[in-house]
Amino acid sequence: MIQLSLVGIGTGNPDHLTRAAIRALNAADLILLPRKGDAKTDLIDLRREICADCVADNVRLVEFDLPQRARAGEYLGRVRDWHAAIAQVWADNIAAHLPGGGRVALMVWGDPSLYDSSLRIARRLIGAGMDVAIDVIPGITSLQALTAAHRIPLNGLGAPVMITTGRRLRAEGWPQGVARVAVMLDEGCAFESLPPEGIQIWWGAYLGMAAEHLIHGRLADKAPVIRTERARLRAAHGWIMDIYLMENACIQGAAG
Amino acid sequence: MIQLSLVGIGTGNPDHLTRAAIRALNAADLILLPRKGDAKTDLIDLRREICADCVADNVRLVEFDLPQRARAGEYLGRVRDWHAAIAQVWADNIAAHLPGGGRVALMVWGDPSLYDSSLRIARRLIGAGMDVAIDVIPGITSLQALTAAHRIPLNGLGAPVMITTGRRLRAEGWPQGVARVAVMLDEGCAFESLPPEGIQIWWGAYLGMAAEHLIHGRLADKAPVIRTERARLRAAHGWIMDIYLMENACIQGAAG
Repeated sequence: MIQLSLVGIGTGNPDHLTRAAIRALNAADLILLPRKGDAKTDLIDLRREICADCVADNVRLVEFDLPQRARAGEYLGRVRDWHAAIAQVWADNIAAHLPGGGRVALMVWGDPSLYDSSLRIARRLIGAGMDVAIDVIPGITSLQALTAAHRIPLNGLGAPVMITTGRRLRAEGWPQGVARVAVMLDEGCAFESLPPEGIQIWWGAYLGMAAEHLIHGRLADKAPVIRTERARLRAAHGWIMDIYLMENACIQGAAG
Repeated sequence: MIQLSLVGIGTGNPDHLTRAAIRALNAADLILLPRKGDAKTDLIDLRREICADCVADNVRLVEFDLPQRARAGEYLGRVRDWHAAIAQVWADNIAAHLPGGGRVALMVWGDPSLYDSSLRIARRLIGAGMDVAIDVIPGITSLQALTAAHRIPLNGLGAPVMITTGRRLRAEGWPQGVARVAVMLDEGCAFESLPPEGIQIWWGAYLGMAAEHLIHGRLADKAPVIRTERARLRAAHGWIMDIYLMENACIQGAAG
Protein backbone atom coordinates (compact mmCIF):
# COMPACT_ATOMS: atom_id res chain seq x y z
CA MET A 1 0.00 0.00 0.00
CA ILE A 2 1.38 3.38 -1.08
CA GLN A 3 0.19 6.72 0.31
CA LEU A 4 1.07 9.29 -2.33
CA SER A 5 1.02 12.96 -1.25
CA LEU A 6 1.04 15.61 -3.96
CA VAL A 7 2.37 18.63 -2.12
CA GLY A 8 1.95 22.11 -3.59
CA ILE A 9 5.09 24.12 -2.82
CA GLY A 10 4.18 27.51 -4.30
CA THR A 11 6.07 29.31 -6.98
CA GLY A 12 9.70 29.67 -6.18
CA ASN A 13 9.57 31.38 -2.82
CA PRO A 14 10.25 28.86 -0.02
CA ASP A 15 8.08 31.07 2.20
CA HIS A 16 5.07 30.07 0.08
CA LEU A 17 5.21 26.69 1.87
CA THR A 18 2.23 26.07 4.13
CA ARG A 19 2.43 24.37 7.50
CA ALA A 20 0.45 21.48 5.97
CA ALA A 21 3.05 21.12 3.19
CA ILE A 22 5.94 21.03 5.67
CA ARG A 23 4.08 18.43 7.73
CA ALA A 24 3.33 16.25 4.70
CA LEU A 25 6.93 16.34 3.48
CA ASN A 26 8.21 15.35 6.91
CA ALA A 27 5.65 12.55 7.22
CA ALA A 28 6.97 10.91 4.02
CA ASP A 29 9.30 7.91 3.90
CA LEU A 30 10.43 8.93 0.43
CA ILE A 31 10.42 12.21 -1.53
CA LEU A 32 10.87 11.89 -5.30
CA LEU A 33 12.62 14.85 -6.94
CA PRO A 34 12.37 15.20 -10.74
CA ARG A 35 15.50 16.23 -12.66
CA LYS A 36 14.39 18.29 -15.67
CA GLY A 37 17.70 18.80 -17.45
CA ASP A 38 20.12 21.69 -17.33
CA ALA A 39 17.87 24.53 -18.46
CA LYS A 40 15.55 24.31 -15.48
CA THR A 41 18.07 23.54 -12.75
CA ASP A 42 16.71 26.48 -10.78
CA LEU A 43 13.51 24.49 -10.30
CA ILE A 44 15.06 21.33 -8.86
CA ASP A 45 17.42 23.50 -6.86
CA LEU A 46 14.40 25.10 -5.22
CA ARG A 47 13.09 21.66 -4.29
CA ARG A 48 16.50 20.72 -2.84
CA GLU A 49 16.61 24.01 -0.95
CA ILE A 50 13.17 23.32 0.54
CA CYS A 51 14.26 19.82 1.58
CA ALA A 52 17.45 21.14 3.16
CA ASP A 53 15.54 23.85 4.96
CA CYS A 54 12.34 22.08 6.09
CA VAL A 55 12.65 18.29 5.85
CA ALA A 56 14.14 16.08 8.55
CA ASP A 57 17.18 13.91 7.73
CA ASN A 58 15.31 10.63 8.13
CA VAL A 59 13.22 11.28 5.00
CA ARG A 60 14.84 9.64 1.98
CA LEU A 61 15.32 11.89 -1.07
CA VAL A 62 15.59 10.25 -4.50
CA GLU A 63 16.15 12.15 -7.74
CA PHE A 64 14.91 10.78 -11.04
CA ASP A 65 15.20 11.95 -14.65
CA LEU A 66 11.91 13.31 -15.88
CA PRO A 67 11.06 11.85 -19.32
CA GLN A 68 11.07 14.38 -22.17
CA ARG A 69 7.86 15.26 -23.96
CA ALA A 70 7.86 14.49 -27.71
CA ARG A 71 8.28 17.64 -29.81
CA ALA A 72 6.22 16.47 -32.81
CA GLY A 73 2.68 15.13 -33.12
CA GLU A 74 -0.82 16.05 -31.97
CA TYR A 75 -0.63 18.08 -28.72
CA LEU A 76 -2.97 16.15 -26.40
CA GLY A 77 -1.65 12.81 -27.65
CA ARG A 78 1.94 13.87 -26.93
CA VAL A 79 0.92 15.03 -23.46
CA ARG A 80 -0.82 11.73 -22.70
CA ASP A 81 2.20 9.67 -23.87
CA TRP A 82 4.42 11.84 -21.69
CA HIS A 83 2.17 11.28 -18.65
CA ALA A 84 2.32 7.52 -19.24
CA ALA A 85 6.12 7.65 -19.31
CA ILE A 86 6.26 9.69 -16.08
CA ALA A 87 3.85 7.31 -14.34
CA GLN A 88 6.17 4.43 -15.26
CA VAL A 89 9.20 6.22 -13.80
CA TRP A 90 7.29 6.99 -10.60
CA ALA A 91 6.19 3.33 -10.34
CA ASP A 92 9.74 2.06 -10.95
CA ASN A 93 11.21 4.35 -8.30
CA ILE A 94 8.52 3.53 -5.75
CA ALA A 95 9.03 -0.23 -6.36
CA ALA A 96 12.81 0.16 -6.03
CA HIS A 97 12.87 2.35 -2.93
CA LEU A 98 9.70 1.35 -1.06
CA PRO A 99 9.20 -2.32 -1.94
CA GLY A 100 7.12 -2.92 1.20
CA GLY A 101 4.91 0.17 0.69
CA GLY A 102 4.88 3.41 2.64
CA ARG A 103 4.46 7.15 2.22
CA VAL A 104 5.74 8.93 -0.90
CA ALA A 105 5.65 12.69 -1.43
CA LEU A 106 6.06 14.66 -4.64
CA MET A 107 6.68 18.39 -4.53
CA VAL A 108 4.45 20.12 -7.06
CA TRP A 109 5.32 23.56 -8.36
CA GLY A 110 2.38 25.89 -7.58
CA ASP A 111 -0.75 23.90 -6.74
CA PRO A 112 -1.61 20.38 -7.94
CA SER A 113 -5.01 21.63 -9.21
CA LEU A 114 -3.93 24.25 -11.74
CA TYR A 115 -2.33 23.27 -15.09
CA ASP A 116 -0.40 20.51 -13.40
CA SER A 117 -0.54 16.86 -14.36
CA SER A 118 0.52 15.12 -11.16
CA LEU A 119 -3.07 14.11 -10.33
CA ARG A 120 -3.60 12.65 -13.81
CA ILE A 121 -0.28 10.80 -13.62
CA ALA A 122 -1.09 9.49 -10.15
CA ARG A 123 -4.42 8.14 -11.41
CA ARG A 124 -2.53 6.17 -14.04
CA LEU A 125 -0.81 4.27 -11.21
CA ILE A 126 -4.21 3.30 -9.84
CA GLY A 127 -5.39 2.45 -13.37
CA ALA A 128 -2.35 0.16 -13.72
CA GLY A 129 -3.45 -1.77 -10.63
CA MET A 130 -1.08 -0.25 -8.07
CA ASP A 131 -2.49 0.01 -4.52
CA VAL A 132 -2.21 3.80 -4.12
CA ALA A 133 -4.15 6.30 -2.00
CA ILE A 134 -3.69 9.91 -3.10
CA ASP A 135 -3.87 13.04 -1.02
CA VAL A 136 -3.37 16.63 -2.13
CA ILE A 137 -1.86 19.53 -0.17
CA PRO A 138 -2.75 22.86 -1.82
CA GLY A 139 -0.01 25.36 -2.62
CA ILE A 140 0.19 29.00 -3.74
CA THR A 141 -0.20 29.25 -7.53
CA SER A 142 1.72 31.55 -9.85
CA LEU A 143 -1.59 33.30 -10.51
CA GLN A 144 -1.82 34.23 -6.83
CA ALA A 145 1.81 35.32 -6.85
CA LEU A 146 1.03 37.47 -9.91
CA THR A 147 -1.95 39.24 -8.37
CA ALA A 148 -0.16 39.65 -5.02
CA ALA A 149 2.89 41.18 -6.70
CA HIS A 150 0.73 43.61 -8.72
CA ARG A 151 -1.56 44.17 -5.68
CA ILE A 152 -4.71 43.54 -7.71
CA PRO A 153 -7.72 41.24 -7.39
CA LEU A 154 -8.05 38.44 -9.95
CA ASN A 155 -11.72 39.19 -10.60
CA GLY A 156 -13.64 42.42 -11.15
CA LEU A 157 -16.22 43.21 -8.47
CA GLY A 158 -18.80 40.39 -8.57
CA ALA A 159 -17.50 39.52 -12.05
CA PRO A 160 -16.21 36.26 -13.56
CA VAL A 161 -12.66 35.50 -14.63
CA MET A 162 -11.45 32.97 -17.20
CA ILE A 163 -8.22 31.03 -16.76
CA THR A 164 -6.90 29.71 -20.04
CA THR A 165 -3.73 28.79 -21.94
CA GLY A 166 -1.67 30.66 -24.50
CA ARG A 167 -2.57 27.97 -27.05
CA ARG A 168 -6.31 28.53 -26.51
CA LEU A 169 -6.05 32.32 -26.54
CA ARG A 170 -4.18 32.21 -29.83
CA ALA A 171 -6.66 29.76 -31.39
CA GLU A 172 -9.90 31.24 -30.08
CA GLY A 173 -9.26 34.92 -29.34
CA TRP A 174 -10.74 36.77 -26.37
CA PRO A 175 -13.31 34.48 -24.68
CA GLN A 176 -16.92 35.58 -24.93
CA GLY A 177 -18.69 37.44 -22.15
CA VAL A 178 -15.80 37.79 -19.71
CA ALA A 179 -13.83 40.97 -18.99
CA ARG A 180 -10.81 39.37 -17.30
CA VAL A 181 -8.68 36.55 -18.64
CA ALA A 182 -5.65 34.97 -16.99
CA VAL A 183 -3.25 33.16 -19.31
CA MET A 184 -0.90 30.35 -18.30
CA LEU A 185 1.34 27.93 -20.25
CA ASP A 186 2.01 30.54 -22.91
CA GLU A 187 5.11 29.54 -24.86
CA GLY A 188 5.39 32.96 -26.44
CA CYS A 189 3.32 36.14 -26.28
CA ALA A 190 -0.10 34.84 -27.37
CA PHE A 191 -1.49 38.26 -26.35
CA GLU A 192 -0.03 39.57 -29.62
CA SER A 193 -2.83 37.73 -31.45
CA LEU A 194 -5.46 40.06 -29.89
CA PRO A 195 -6.54 43.47 -31.17
CA PRO A 196 -5.09 45.47 -28.24
CA GLU A 197 -7.68 48.28 -28.02
CA GLY A 198 -9.14 48.62 -24.52
CA ILE A 199 -6.99 45.84 -23.06
CA GLN A 200 -4.80 46.25 -20.00
CA ILE A 201 -2.17 43.63 -19.08
CA TRP A 202 -0.48 42.65 -15.82
CA TRP A 203 2.46 40.39 -16.69
CA GLY A 204 4.94 38.58 -14.45
CA ALA A 205 7.87 36.21 -14.85
CA TYR A 206 9.80 34.16 -12.24
CA LEU A 207 7.01 35.02 -9.81
CA GLY A 208 7.94 34.62 -6.17
CA MET A 209 11.64 34.24 -7.02
CA ALA A 210 14.48 36.73 -6.62
CA ALA A 211 14.38 37.28 -10.40
CA GLU A 212 10.67 38.27 -10.31
CA HIS A 213 9.89 40.73 -13.10
CA LEU A 214 6.61 42.65 -13.51
CA ILE A 215 5.15 44.75 -16.32
CA HIS A 216 1.78 46.51 -16.28
CA GLY A 217 0.01 48.83 -18.69
CA ARG A 218 -2.02 49.14 -21.87
CA LEU A 219 -1.52 46.10 -24.08
CA ALA A 220 -0.95 48.36 -27.08
CA ASP A 221 2.06 49.91 -25.32
CA LYS A 222 3.37 46.94 -23.39
CA ALA A 223 3.10 44.05 -25.87
CA PRO A 224 6.41 44.93 -27.59
CA VAL A 225 8.05 45.72 -24.23
CA ILE A 226 7.08 42.29 -22.87
CA ARG A 227 8.29 40.53 -26.05
CA THR A 228 11.73 42.18 -25.75
CA GLU A 229 12.08 41.70 -21.98
CA ARG A 230 10.90 38.09 -22.21
CA ALA A 231 13.57 37.25 -24.79
CA ARG A 232 16.27 39.02 -22.79
CA LEU A 233 15.31 37.28 -19.52
CA ARG A 234 15.00 33.88 -21.18
CA ALA A 235 18.49 34.24 -22.63
CA ALA A 236 19.89 35.37 -19.29
CA HIS A 237 18.33 32.54 -17.21
CA GLY A 238 18.19 29.74 -19.79
CA TRP A 239 14.44 29.32 -19.12
CA ILE A 240 11.39 31.43 -18.38
CA MET A 241 8.01 30.91 -16.76
CA ASP A 242 5.62 33.82 -17.19
CA ILE A 243 1.87 34.39 -16.88
CA TYR A 244 -0.44 37.34 -17.20
CA LEU A 245 -3.87 38.72 -16.45
CA MET A 246 -5.70 40.96 -18.92
CA GLU A 247 -8.79 43.13 -18.58
CA ASN A 248 -10.87 44.17 -21.56
CA ALA A 249 -12.66 47.46 -20.88
CA CYS A 250 -14.93 46.91 -23.91
CA ILE A 251 -16.71 44.08 -22.11
CA GLN A 252 -19.41 44.71 -19.54
CA GLY A 253 -18.31 43.88 -16.00
CA ALA A 254 -14.77 45.20 -16.45
CA ALA A 255 -15.21 47.92 -13.83
CA GLY A 256 -14.40 47.19 -10.25
CA MET B 1 3.16 56.30 7.00
CA ILE B 2 1.16 53.06 7.26
CA GLN B 3 2.34 49.72 5.85
CA LEU B 4 -0.82 47.64 5.36
CA SER B 5 -0.35 43.90 4.84
CA LEU B 6 -3.29 41.91 3.50
CA VAL B 7 -2.47 38.40 4.63
CA GLY B 8 -4.25 35.42 3.07
CA ILE B 9 -4.85 32.83 5.81
CA GLY B 10 -6.45 30.01 3.81
CA THR B 11 -9.86 28.54 4.40
CA GLY B 12 -10.34 27.47 7.96
CA ASN B 13 -7.42 25.14 8.44
CA PRO B 14 -4.64 26.88 10.41
CA ASP B 15 -2.20 24.60 8.57
CA HIS B 16 -3.03 26.49 5.37
CA LEU B 17 -0.91 29.34 6.73
CA THR B 18 2.27 29.91 4.75
CA ARG B 19 5.60 30.81 6.28
CA ALA B 20 5.28 34.23 4.60
CA ALA B 21 1.90 34.77 6.29
CA ILE B 22 3.26 33.87 9.72
CA ARG B 23 6.19 36.22 9.15
CA ALA B 24 3.95 39.10 8.02
CA LEU B 25 1.62 38.72 11.00
CA ASN B 26 4.56 38.76 13.40
CA ALA B 27 6.10 41.79 11.70
CA ALA B 28 2.94 43.83 12.36
CA ASP B 29 2.54 46.39 15.12
CA LEU B 30 -1.24 45.97 14.96
CA ILE B 31 -3.56 43.24 13.69
CA LEU B 32 -7.17 44.28 13.07
CA LEU B 33 -9.72 41.49 13.60
CA PRO B 34 -13.24 42.01 12.18
CA ARG B 35 -16.20 40.93 14.34
CA LYS B 36 -18.95 39.72 11.98
CA GLY B 37 -21.78 39.12 14.44
CA ASP B 38 -22.88 35.93 16.14
CA ALA B 39 -23.65 33.75 13.13
CA LYS B 40 -20.09 33.70 11.88
CA THR B 41 -18.23 33.49 15.17
CA ASP B 42 -16.39 30.44 13.84
CA LEU B 43 -14.62 32.76 11.42
CA ILE B 44 -13.32 35.27 13.95
CA ASP B 45 -12.55 32.38 16.27
CA LEU B 46 -10.27 30.96 13.59
CA ARG B 47 -8.45 34.30 13.36
CA ARG B 48 -8.07 34.37 17.16
CA GLU B 49 -6.84 30.78 17.11
CA ILE B 50 -4.22 31.65 14.48
CA CYS B 51 -3.07 34.65 16.55
CA ALA B 52 -2.86 32.55 19.71
CA ASP B 53 -0.96 29.85 17.87
CA CYS B 54 1.42 31.81 15.60
CA VAL B 55 1.67 35.46 16.63
CA ALA B 56 4.05 36.78 19.29
CA ASP B 57 2.62 38.58 22.33
CA ASN B 58 4.11 41.95 21.39
CA VAL B 59 1.77 42.31 18.39
CA ARG B 60 -1.33 44.28 19.38
CA LEU B 61 -4.68 42.69 18.45
CA VAL B 62 -7.70 44.97 18.07
CA GLU B 63 -11.20 43.73 17.25
CA PHE B 64 -13.67 45.93 15.42
CA ASP B 65 -17.31 45.52 14.40
CA LEU B 66 -17.60 44.98 10.65
CA PRO B 67 -20.31 47.26 9.19
CA GLN B 68 -23.34 45.40 7.83
CA ARG B 69 -24.10 45.44 4.12
CA ALA B 70 -27.49 46.97 3.21
CA ARG B 71 -30.07 44.31 2.33
CA ALA B 72 -32.01 46.36 -0.21
CA GLY B 73 -30.97 48.28 -3.33
CA GLU B 74 -28.90 47.69 -6.44
CA TYR B 75 -26.23 45.04 -5.76
CA LEU B 76 -23.01 46.77 -6.87
CA GLY B 77 -24.11 50.05 -5.28
CA ARG B 78 -24.76 48.33 -1.95
CA VAL B 79 -21.36 46.63 -2.14
CA ARG B 80 -19.57 49.93 -2.84
CA ASP B 81 -21.33 51.67 0.07
CA TRP B 82 -20.35 48.80 2.31
CA HIS B 83 -16.70 49.05 1.22
CA ALA B 84 -16.72 52.78 1.98
CA ALA B 85 -18.06 52.07 5.48
CA ILE B 86 -15.40 49.40 6.11
CA ALA B 87 -12.62 51.70 4.87
CA GLN B 88 -13.81 54.31 7.38
CA VAL B 89 -13.68 51.79 10.26
CA TRP B 90 -10.20 50.69 9.24
CA ALA B 91 -9.05 54.31 9.07
CA ASP B 92 -10.57 55.13 12.48
CA ASN B 93 -8.92 52.13 14.13
CA ILE B 94 -5.55 52.80 12.54
CA ALA B 95 -5.70 56.46 13.63
CA ALA B 96 -6.69 55.45 17.18
CA HIS B 97 -4.14 52.67 17.67
CA LEU B 98 -1.22 53.72 15.46
CA PRO B 99 -1.31 57.53 15.54
CA GLY B 100 2.38 57.72 14.63
CA GLY B 101 2.16 55.23 11.76
CA GLY B 102 3.48 51.67 11.61
CA ARG B 103 2.66 48.23 10.29
CA VAL B 104 -0.94 46.99 10.21
CA ALA B 105 -1.98 43.47 9.17
CA LEU B 106 -5.41 42.20 8.20
CA MET B 107 -6.08 38.48 8.00
CA VAL B 108 -7.99 37.70 4.81
CA TRP B 109 -10.01 34.51 4.51
CA GLY B 110 -8.66 32.55 1.51
CA ASP B 111 -6.56 34.79 -0.74
CA PRO B 112 -6.86 38.57 -1.15
CA SER B 113 -7.15 38.15 -4.94
CA LEU B 114 -10.26 36.00 -5.24
CA TYR B 115 -13.73 37.40 -4.51
CA ASP B 116 -12.37 39.40 -1.64
CA SER B 117 -12.67 43.15 -1.25
CA SER B 118 -9.75 43.99 1.03
CA LEU B 119 -7.67 45.35 -1.85
CA ARG B 120 -10.53 47.57 -3.06
CA ILE B 121 -11.15 48.80 0.49
CA ALA B 122 -7.43 49.45 1.02
CA ARG B 123 -7.31 51.53 -2.16
CA ARG B 124 -10.08 53.72 -0.74
CA LEU B 125 -7.71 54.67 2.09
CA ILE B 126 -5.17 55.84 -0.47
CA GLY B 127 -7.95 57.59 -2.41
CA ALA B 128 -8.91 59.41 0.80
CA GLY B 129 -5.37 60.76 1.07
CA MET B 130 -3.99 58.40 3.72
CA ASP B 131 -0.26 57.62 3.38
CA VAL B 132 -0.55 53.84 2.94
CA ALA B 133 1.66 51.28 1.22
CA ILE B 134 -0.06 47.95 0.56
CA ASP B 135 1.45 44.52 0.33
CA VAL B 136 -0.30 41.21 -0.30
CA ILE B 137 0.59 37.78 1.06
CA PRO B 138 -1.17 35.05 -0.95
CA GLY B 139 -3.19 32.38 0.84
CA ILE B 140 -4.85 29.08 -0.07
CA THR B 141 -8.30 29.71 -1.60
CA SER B 142 -11.45 27.68 -0.97
CA LEU B 143 -11.26 26.65 -4.63
CA GLN B 144 -7.90 25.00 -3.98
CA ALA B 145 -9.26 23.40 -0.81
CA LEU B 146 -12.20 22.09 -2.89
CA THR B 147 -10.06 20.51 -5.61
CA ALA B 148 -7.58 19.13 -3.05
CA ALA B 149 -10.38 17.53 -1.01
CA HIS B 150 -11.92 15.96 -4.13
CA ARG B 151 -8.42 15.12 -5.50
CA ILE B 152 -9.20 16.65 -8.89
CA PRO B 153 -7.58 19.27 -11.13
CA LEU B 154 -9.41 22.57 -11.58
CA ASN B 155 -8.95 22.55 -15.35
CA GLY B 156 -9.33 19.83 -17.96
CA LEU B 157 -6.11 18.90 -19.78
CA GLY B 158 -4.94 22.03 -21.61
CA ALA B 159 -8.47 23.43 -21.24
CA PRO B 160 -9.79 26.69 -19.78
CA VAL B 161 -11.83 27.12 -16.61
CA MET B 162 -14.22 29.92 -15.71
CA ILE B 163 -14.57 31.20 -12.15
CA THR B 164 -17.86 32.96 -11.58
CA THR B 165 -20.52 33.76 -8.99
CA GLY B 166 -23.88 32.18 -8.20
CA ARG B 167 -25.54 35.44 -9.22
CA ARG B 168 -23.91 35.38 -12.67
CA LEU B 169 -24.60 31.68 -13.25
CA ARG B 170 -28.27 32.20 -12.45
CA ALA B 171 -28.52 35.29 -14.70
CA GLU B 172 -26.48 34.07 -17.65
CA GLY B 173 -26.57 30.25 -17.60
CA TRP B 174 -23.59 28.08 -18.53
CA PRO B 175 -20.84 30.32 -19.95
CA GLN B 176 -20.05 29.86 -23.62
CA GLY B 177 -17.17 27.74 -24.83
CA VAL B 178 -15.89 26.46 -21.51
CA ALA B 179 -16.35 22.93 -20.14
CA ARG B 180 -15.50 23.65 -16.49
CA VAL B 181 -17.03 26.33 -14.30
CA ALA B 182 -16.22 27.03 -10.64
CA VAL B 183 -18.90 28.91 -8.70
CA MET B 184 -18.30 31.05 -5.62
CA LEU B 185 -20.46 33.44 -3.57
CA ASP B 186 -23.58 31.38 -4.28
CA GLU B 187 -26.24 32.30 -1.75
CA GLY B 188 -28.34 29.29 -2.66
CA CYS B 189 -27.99 26.49 -5.23
CA ALA B 190 -27.70 28.51 -8.48
CA PHE B 191 -26.83 25.20 -10.20
CA GLU B 192 -30.54 24.41 -10.08
CA SER B 193 -31.06 27.01 -12.81
CA LEU B 194 -29.12 24.84 -15.32
CA PRO B 195 -30.47 21.97 -17.42
CA PRO B 196 -28.50 19.21 -15.64
CA GLU B 197 -27.89 16.84 -18.58
CA GLY B 198 -24.21 16.00 -19.01
CA ILE B 199 -23.11 18.04 -15.99
CA GLN B 200 -21.03 16.66 -13.13
CA ILE B 201 -20.64 18.59 -9.85
CA TRP B 202 -18.02 18.58 -7.12
CA TRP B 203 -19.43 20.49 -4.14
CA GLY B 204 -17.88 21.37 -0.80
CA ALA B 205 -18.83 23.30 2.33
CA TYR B 206 -16.71 24.43 5.31
CA LEU B 207 -13.65 23.51 3.22
CA GLY B 208 -10.51 22.97 5.25
CA MET B 209 -12.46 22.96 8.53
CA ALA B 210 -13.40 20.02 10.77
CA ALA B 211 -16.97 20.31 9.46
CA GLU B 212 -15.84 19.92 5.81
CA HIS B 213 -18.56 18.26 3.75
CA LEU B 214 -18.16 17.00 0.17
CA ILE B 215 -20.63 15.79 -2.46
CA HIS B 216 -19.75 14.62 -5.98
CA GLY B 217 -21.80 13.15 -8.80
CA ARG B 218 -24.13 13.84 -11.70
CA LEU B 219 -25.89 17.17 -11.22
CA ALA B 220 -29.23 15.52 -12.06
CA ASP B 221 -28.80 13.20 -9.06
CA LYS B 222 -26.96 15.46 -6.64
CA ALA B 223 -28.76 18.82 -6.99
CA PRO B 224 -31.58 17.82 -4.61
CA VAL B 225 -29.10 16.10 -2.25
CA ILE B 226 -27.00 19.26 -2.04
CA ARG B 227 -30.08 21.44 -1.47
CA THR B 228 -31.17 19.26 1.47
CA GLU B 229 -27.72 18.87 3.01
CA ARG B 230 -26.96 22.58 2.61
CA ALA B 231 -30.13 23.53 4.52
CA ARG B 232 -29.41 20.99 7.25
CA LEU B 233 -25.78 22.10 7.68
CA ARG B 234 -26.69 25.78 7.63
CA ALA B 235 -29.26 25.21 10.39
CA ALA B 236 -26.77 23.19 12.43
CA HIS B 237 -23.88 25.71 12.17
CA GLY B 238 -25.81 28.98 11.90
CA TRP B 239 -23.90 29.83 8.67
CA ILE B 240 -22.53 28.11 5.61
CA MET B 241 -19.85 28.80 3.02
CA ASP B 242 -19.93 26.46 0.05
CA ILE B 243 -18.50 26.42 -3.47
CA TYR B 244 -18.49 24.00 -6.36
CA LEU B 245 -16.89 23.03 -9.63
CA MET B 246 -18.93 21.68 -12.53
CA GLU B 247 -17.95 19.99 -15.78
CA ASN B 248 -20.20 19.94 -18.81
CA ALA B 249 -19.49 16.89 -20.96
CA CYS B 250 -21.48 18.40 -23.85
CA ILE B 251 -18.80 21.04 -24.41
CA GLN B 252 -15.61 20.30 -26.32
CA GLY B 253 -12.57 20.17 -24.08
CA ALA B 254 -14.33 18.46 -21.18
CA ALA B 255 -12.18 15.33 -21.44
CA GLY B 256 -8.96 15.13 -19.52
